[in-house]
Amino acid sequence: MAEGRMKLLGYVSAAAFALVLAACQSSGTAIPPAPEGNTPSPADVIAASKPEEWRTLDPENTLYMDFPNGRVIIEMAPEFSPKHVANVKALSREGFFVNGAVTRVQDNFVTQWAQAADPARPPKVGVEKLNAEFTLPRNAPLQFDVLPDPDTFAPEVGFINGFYAARDKERVWLTHCYGMVGVGRENDENSGGGTELYVVIGQSPRALDRLLTMLGRVVQGMEIMSAFPRGTGEVGFYKTPGEYQHYADIKVASDVPSAQRTNLETMRTDSASFKTLVNSRRWRKDDFYTKPVGRIGLCNITVPVRAAK
Amino acid sequence: MAEGRMKLLGYVSAAAFALVLAACQSSGTAIPPAPEGNTPSPADVIAASKPEEWRTLDPENTLYMDFPNGRVIIEMAPEFSPKHVANVKALSREGFFVNGAVTRVQDNFVTQWAQAADPARPPKVGVEKLNAEFTLPRNAPLQFDVLPDPDTFAPEVGFINGFYAARDKERVWLTHCYGMVGVGRENDENSGGGTELYVVIGQSPRALDRLLTMLGRVVQGMEIMSAFPRGTGEVGFYKTPGEYQHYADIKVASDVPSAQRTNLETMRTDSASFKTLVNSRRWRKDDFYTKPVGRIGLCNITVPVRAAK
Repeated sequence: MAEGRMKLLGYVSAAAFALVLAACQSSGTAIPPAPEGNTPSPADVIAASKPEEWRTLDPENTLYMDFPNGRVIIEMAPEFSPKHVANVKALSREGFFVNGAVTRVQDNFVTQWAQAADPARPPKVGVEKLNAEFTLPRNAPLQFDVLPDPDTFAPEVGFINGFYAARDKERVWLTHCYGMVGVGRENDENSGGGTELYVVIGQSPRALDRLLTMLGRVVQGMEIMSAFPRGTGEVGFYKTPGEYQHYADIKVASDVPSAQRTNLETMRTDSASFKTLVNSRRWRKDDFYTKPVGRIGLCNITVPVRAAK
Repeated sequence: MAEGRMKLLGYVSAAAFALVLAACQSSGTAIPPAPEGNTPSPADVIAASKPEEWRTLDPENTLYMDFPNGRVIIEMAPEFSPKHVANVKALSREGFFVNGAVTRVQDNFVTQWAQAADPARPPKVGVEKLNAEFTLPRNAPLQFDVLPDPDTFAPEVGFINGFYAARDKERVWLTHCYGMVGVGRENDENSGGGTELYVVIGQSPRALDRLLTMLGRVVQGMEIMSAFPRGTGEVGFYKTPGEYQHYADIKVASDVPSAQRTNLETMRTDSASFKTLVNSRRWRKDDFYTKPVGRIGLCNITVPVRAAK
């Protein structure tokens, strides 16, 4: 008997579950079938996009972290964490991050960095602790571009101005997708400030959503942040300072001479081209992907970034 | 007006979407509230588990891949890909994998390896191509332990004997979660055989489900497979053989002398302790995770593995 083979983890009855599944799947029926023929590649969509479908990163809200093997660039999200963004800029400007280092790489979770001077210096202008900036009211004046498929963790997911986001009836927040940067803290929700930062590597740990202040996203250099040796100490901390992965500094782009800047632009997530991109990945069909899924997950989407034109 | 701020990517009307969301969310109401107090950690659950809730890995279906910095261990899934598993074993036994190498590391996607002898040797006993083993009929005699929350890509997801899996009304398949190992192929669905293998690193690329033959899962050494330098060639291939990351060989564990084996056991995914583990992560509550989510994604669950007792 089929029932003998199926065992439900958790507490939903099989009947209730089937009902919910059927309802969830009905979202599929509301969506038109796959486009005919092969779907365009991201490169195709980018090539066909218009200049006004891109926005240049604001140097005042962009951070550079220069490692020996390349520059990591972070776009900050002051709409969501204005106090933390301001504090990180203040910390940068007082030299707090000079000769900092990655101190923790926990496989399939996060890479974390901090001021690594030994002994640690307390900040002078910036502060160590700020009140949490986890979520905003749902009615915050931000355009939310909703994705069509069910998400495991939130009622609605999509993009706000290039950032992975989610919302429910009351609140809106940035989500822990690959490449998102958050503010480390201790158990106290108000114990973070920006002296410890982390980026998501591996499968997105969405259970962290709404529990951490999100500072922004990595727009260049994730292949650096994701490939450091994993730490062998507890939760991935390096056991010895000799393992630390040093960067020269964390600088606000606007504080860097023009000639040394990396000027980037990102595709607007409220643009027609981005909608085309999402749909072409959702229904991806080419010589290799022969059976389109017609589904796409929030954290499986990459927002295009390129050199500013 | 709220409508002005909300723009739906794709083609579902907002009303239809809200309806589906409400239905999907009703699965939440069928599930009891968070357990009282803090949830046990995985270590707590493992400590409280019974010996019969674990199974020892079968050396006949286990592969060792020894890198200079450690051993990577793969548990194969002959229930799903019997011909590919048999072929990989034949390839191993004829020495096909000796002095092989990782040749591709595409960030946030896959690490791929292969026989890297230069020039490449054709197999003698094993073969280069087999017919695809992508899915099984849903009524295959395999216990499927279903998870309670909605999944973006499949109607039902859960575990089959320790492997991440999904099914619909007709078919059942293994899914591309972090650490899952698949069989590389060309565009032809029947062009893979096991002479090229890959493992998922980064956010799970679930759009690959049902398009590739899955060989098994990494049960030890993911921190090695995920931390190689990313390739700078097309789709992450290393541009020069000098960049290749060599392993000594890929050996079937049963072909390795007992004294050199790594004997592992894995928690049975049909056990009460695994159910407790999933539920404790789903409702995770402790001094840091203060607001339980009551949701968990398939690829966010790690199946415990430990030294065999």
